[in-house]
Amino acid sequence: MNHLNIILFHPTEVEHPLSRKDLRAVHILDVLRLQPGQIFDAGLIDGAQGKGTLAAVNEASLTLSFVWGNSPPPLYPIHLLIGLPRPQTSRDILRDVTTLGVASINFIRSERGEASYSSSNLWKSDEWKNCVINGTAQAFCTRLPIIIRDQTLAEALAGLPSGAARVALDNYEASCSLTAFSPTVSQPVVIALGSERGWAPSERRLFRDAGFCFAHLGPRVLRTETACIAAVTLIRSKLGLF
Amino acid sequence: MNHLNIILFHPTEVEHPLSRKDLRAVHILDVLRLQPGQIFDAGLIDGAQGKGTLAAVNEASLTLSFVWGNSPPPLYPIHLLIGLPRPQTSRDILRDVTTLGVASINFIRSERGEASYSSSNLWKSDEWKNCVINGTAQAFCTRLPIIIRDQTLAEALAGLPSGAARVALDNYEASCSLTAFSPTVSQPVVIALGSERGWAPSERRLFRDAGFCFAHLGPRVLRTETACIAAVTLIRSKLGLF
Repeated sequence: MNHLNIILFHPTEVEHPLSRKDLRAVHILDVLRLQPGQIFDAGLIDGAQGKGTLAAVNEASLTLSFVWGNSPPPLYPIHLLIGLPRPQTSRDILRDVTTLGVASINFIRSERGEASYSSSNLWKSDEWKNCVINGTAQAFCTRLPIIIRDQTLAEALAGLPSGAARVALDNYEASCSLTAFSPTVSQPVVIALGSERGWAPSERRLFRDAGFCFAHLGPRVLRTETACIAAVTLIRSKLGLF
Repeated sequence: MNHLNIILFHPTEVEHPLSRKDLRAVHILDVLRLQPGQIFDAGLIDGAQGKGTLAAVNEASLTLSFVWGNSPPPLYPIHLLIGLPRPQTSRDILRDVTTLGVASINFIRSERGEASYSSSNLWKSDEWKNCVINGTAQAFCTRLPIIIRDQTLAEALAGLPSGAARVALDNYEASCSLTAFSPTVSQPVVIALGSERGWAPSERRLFRDAGFCFAHLGPRVLRTETACIAAVTLIRSKLGLF
């Protein structure tokens, strides 16, 4: 098990003992190896950061106490639109792009996407939420991005923040590199990335009508997961968010 | 199995039939679903790109023929020094940083590193080479980065390209963001990333003596794999390599 930088709790959870079967209890006892009286970094999901204390341990549960401090700053005004990828790719994107601090990820039902991906266990269970929470904890943050699913591209475009700079990564249509894309500092940015088979012509028209420009990420073909990290990194750099 | 953008062969392999048990044969028959006479994108490792033709199939092997064209451009003059991470992290770095086009990756035996990682199957078998080949094929390229292992930091520093700009990512020592680091275009760049427990004080002295500056990747704590992709992306951007 990896080290968790901060252990996150829903506000309703912190008033009750934590079952020893809960993965966070396992982490506190087996990875951090805390003894009663020792502290760990804790956070309230979408709320304050602070310190937890392992007050007591019995056979069934841990008793924890908390002291809360400030809430972390808002997430970055970066929004991803992604044609829903296969579940393993979606898992990695949920975790890593969350760690990078985007405000929202919208997994779109694209025309050429594989409909069956949306009925995978990742999405049918709470697994996707855990990916987001793990990505948030990795970043030593408490704020979760908004995750949206099952919209068509037209529906997603209708919900974009007004005034956002808009760019679609598309190796076939791109007229410039993403490094030439210039949002103004503090402007929200929407980045669209294609699904495995790319966008359909009708979707490309929707992007153009919605004011998107098309950009590429260079001559080397990246995996979708890698392209997401690279694109968010470049936009954070352009917005002065490093 | 994922789609391979280009199927790579060692020069000695292309003169012989390809066993049907070879993963590339499985890919040609079961993923690309080629029939005799059909073509696929092929490359010679560290050599030319071209087209392969599935000439014939029998129970034991495939007969392939090739037409070779140009070799791809050189890899980017970006060199990574990484404290040897756990095997799963090393696998992802080998593949993804190769796809991004770095010239070399040196996995260092750092003072605080976990020595047992270097005896994992990843390194004892050819698995690490396959990670590099997969990362190269993903990029639609034939050139493999140089992979170095088991050097101490002092040994690695002695072998760096002369005239290279040098930066070490280190959240504790950093005086600026990596986005403020300014190599000149076409200058080789060496990026050092710490292992799980970071660099020891004696290693930090070695970095300073070797002309490294220390930089960070922002307030959000990234996984090592994500930090590698983000750092190479930023340096490629600064070198005009997108």
